[in-house]
Amino acid sequence: MASALRYGAKMRMATRVPARALSTTARLSAAEKPFFPNEPTAPVVSTAIPGPKNQAATAELDKVFDVRSINMLADYNKSVGNYIFDLDGNKLLDVYAQIASIPVGYNNPHLAEVAKSPEMASALINRPALGNFPSSEWAHILETGALRAAPKGLNQVFTAMAGSDANETAYKAAFMYYRQLQRGGPEVEFTEEELLSTMNNQGPGSPQLSILSFKHAFHGRLFGSLSTTRSKAIHKMDIPAFDWPQATFPMLKYPLEDHVQENAQEEQRCLQEVERLIKEYHNPVAAVMVEPIQSEGGDNHASPAFFQGLRDITKRTNVLFIVDEVQTGIGATGKFWAHDHWNLDTPPDMVTFSKKAQTAGYYFGNPALRPNKPYRQFNTWMGDPARALIFRGIIEEVERLGLVEHTRITGEYLYAGLERLAQKYPEHFQNLRGKGQGTFIAWDTPKRDQFLVKAKSVGVNIGGSGANAVRLRPMLVFQQHHADILLESIEKIIKLL
Amino acid sequence: MASALRYGAKMRMATRVPARALSTTARLSAAEKPFFPNEPTAPVVSTAIPGPKNQAATAELDKVFDVRSINMLADYNKSVGNYIFDLDGNKLLDVYAQIASIPVGYNNPHLAEVAKSPEMASALINRPALGNFPSSEWAHILETGALRAAPKGLNQVFTAMAGSDANETAYKAAFMYYRQLQRGGPEVEFTEEELLSTMNNQGPGSPQLSILSFKHAFHGRLFGSLSTTRSKAIHKMDIPAFDWPQATFPMLKYPLEDHVQENAQEEQRCLQEVERLIKEYHNPVAAVMVEPIQSEGGDNHASPAFFQGLRDITKRTNVLFIVDEVQTGIGATGKFWAHDHWNLDTPPDMVTFSKKAQTAGYYFGNPALRPNKPYRQFNTWMGDPARALIFRGIIEEVERLGLVEHTRITGEYLYAGLERLAQKYPEHFQNLRGKGQGTFIAWDTPKRDQFLVKAKSVGVNIGGSGANAVRLRPMLVFQQHHADILLESIEKIIKLL
Repeated sequence: MASALRYGAKMRMATRVPARALSTTARLSAAEKPFFPNEPTAPVVSTAIPGPKNQAATAELDKVFDVRSINMLADYNKSVGNYIFDLDGNKLLDVYAQIASIPVGYNNPHLAEVAKSPEMASALINRPALGNFPSSEWAHILETGALRAAPKGLNQVFTAMAGSDANETAYKAAFMYYRQLQRGGPEVEFTEEELLSTMNNQGPGSPQLSILSFKHAFHGRLFGSLSTTRSKAIHKMDIPAFDWPQATFPMLKYPLEDHVQENAQEEQRCLQEVERLIKEYHNPVAAVMVEPIQSEGGDNHASPAFFQGLRDITKRTNVLFIVDEVQTGIGATGKFWAHDHWNLDTPPDMVTFSKKAQTAGYYFGNPALRPNKPYRQFNTWMGDPARALIFRGIIEEVERLGLVEHTRITGEYLYAGLERLAQKYPEHFQNLRGKGQGTFIAWDTPKRDQFLVKAKSVGVNIGGSGANAVRLRPMLVFQQHHADILLESIEKIIKLL
Repeated sequence: MASALRYGAKMRMATRVPARALSTTARLSAAEKPFFPNEPTAPVVSTAIPGPKNQAATAELDKVFDVRSINMLADYNKSVGNYIFDLDGNKLLDVYAQIASIPVGYNNPHLAEVAKSPEMASALINRPALGNFPSSEWAHILETGALRAAPKGLNQVFTAMAGSDANETAYKAAFMYYRQLQRGGPEVEFTEEELLSTMNNQGPGSPQLSILSFKHAFHGRLFGSLSTTRSKAIHKMDIPAFDWPQATFPMLKYPLEDHVQENAQEEQRCLQEVERLIKEYHNPVAAVMVEPIQSEGGDNHASPAFFQGLRDITKRTNVLFIVDEVQTGIGATGKFWAHDHWNLDTPPDMVTFSKKAQTAGYYFGNPALRPNKPYRQFNTWMGDPARALIFRGIIEEVERLGLVEHTRITGEYLYAGLERLAQKYPEHFQNLRGKGQGTFIAWDTPKRDQFLVKAKSVGVNIGGSGANAVRLRPMLVFQQHHADILLESIEKIIKLL
């Protein structure tokens, strides 16, 4: 009931003009109690960014660590909620959130309790080889944590360390499954030729199978995942890659309502290409890998119909369908999993996660995706129980505060504000996208890199994606009063360009 | 002085017969104060292993997690020092130590303090994207932690999550470096053809370069690292692999002193093969990757002369020399890094670490190994500051207790005891190896798998490597009284076979 009431209150708020110089107090309506009462009420910019202390500390770090990608050094002891603090007294509203990976705010009190628990201390100092010697509590931690949030239809998890190895272990499971089908079942033994040839990295033991991914996809940077990543040349240059196929991801035209038929045709064309590649590619396709929203590659969206089509094709051609929810998972799109938006008849075969989960892995449901023998899908640590405890704490916090529904509503509010800005400044807003996708919102802008730099000067930390997009990736504790500040800030940035 | 005294005392002890039913109190000489006063004085075996509670808990875990590789479920709240406890009251002396990865004992009090520190809580709940937004303390954590232990000549670190991605990021650095040399330097821009072809996973942008590794090597299980792993077919089966070369690793004959010339010839033959492969392999070799002691592949050792030869060849042929210290690093061989035993003229180009560091990465010294542009070697988390704090705590504990020298001495004591057992039971001890390599000791035995199973019944947790080897991987806090128990236990196991 309370949440329904809150919903109504917020929807009414969405009809008023948000980007206006209201006092911060006025912004915080009774319906919108701040999740972090100790947050700054507005960004504070005290120096040029990076300020003198940040510059000195970066120079020190440069002696031992590559600092050329440093955005800013942060003071995490002081950062709170949606605000990241630096060493020079700057306090920025953070809608980039560690590349979309902080879920419930800096110094979240509930996570702080988890971090200080005796269970956590034990997980940190008695790190097990999870495949050999898990703690007796491991099943309970999974059941009350990662699996409590499992996508519908997927009741098993393989735990990993980060998005790249989550994706790669899913690929390995797909290859083993594919070959098992070819062999005629789990009980068919490997041949002598297979056993010998794989030691030489040759077929048939090491077969030339492939994973199909999409143009502009980002699935990680290790050798297998990088072979499916097609976002930017700088990610791939000089690194040997597998000869794997890529299909075109739909490039939709915006506003969607003005291009319905054209976009539907584009999606159909892409689906046909997928099916053709699966049938014809010289290295047979074991699985199709896709992001619900291509993130690093430029915030490219497709419709539920497209993904339903992908699921149909993969079923019909008997290849696996893997959904990479590393960036989209854990609530940011207004559903816990972005693929919940698709209403699939049958779930994906595997769903990978990382980032906001603060740990990683893949979910699956089909028991045949457990390889037919032990030690085929294995490594020393197989994840980190300490991070699994944090994931559990995140899920608890998401449930306690209703953060998925909250993000859906805040996203609608924010999107409405952005639409108004887009009308006012059409030259700075192209292809506004992410409507109905929570706060997972982006638009293209001609001076994107300058936009991101100027954002800091008005107290906001924002990231980009692709070549031209501003991508918003606020945390799940991002609220309407933050949206107001963000909208005001965007207007300020535009005036600075 | 104190440590010299202790050394003398221990050397004297090594001359007496250790494997004898002395009372536990008698074993603990004054020179050998236990590091963990609250450890059991001897193993306790209360049930068949796995006992009833373990079996029930494993069945529960099986619902959501592959349990076929489960060795035992552990009670980490009770495990202490060198002893791993299970749910059924069994307390095993653990000389496997989570596949060689627990460094300073279960529930180490110093690490417990680190785990409970405010710094740790912040690292756990404010996980940064280290390449973009490191904390202002990150340089300090590296300088007082990972880099305090850096191999001689290597003053930079790239942090990772586990052994596999540590190795793969080192490979990526090697490929980028190799192509940079080919291009003519860091300032030479990528060509249009490179930029386009890499998006299609084709050369010249995605070149068909290779990493040379050795037969029986184990370097991890992701796609790039698995392509250099040559330990067992089960690790590689059905997974696509790169066409990369493998050289023969010397298979030495034991006892070494009886096969001096033969072994030297074997090593020379292997070195010649390496040089030939570097010069002739159709996919040019960017780096040679080697373990100081092949671990997973069967505890295969080679002499310092062999590794000096490898370093010479790699310098002469202008390829990089990467040493995989994932299993050998952090003191287990009686030196902090196993390659310290080699007295190289110039250090390896990169050294990778994981396991006992409880976090992972690679060290390097040559600034040209930083890629020429930002974001080429990058990922969201790039390691985990929480685990970096644990590594620092481990280094502090190693220094405080002098655990490297301690392990060297304990290793000599243990090795002497094993030599006596080998003389007494020659049919159960072949190729005893690891003399002068701390506690990094192994031998072959005909009924190896039975040996490992029976070990539990006498209260010891031991692992194997390769097809026939028993591998000892005790922690750095393994002491002479533990060695006595282990030696007695081995004799008991032999009698049960």
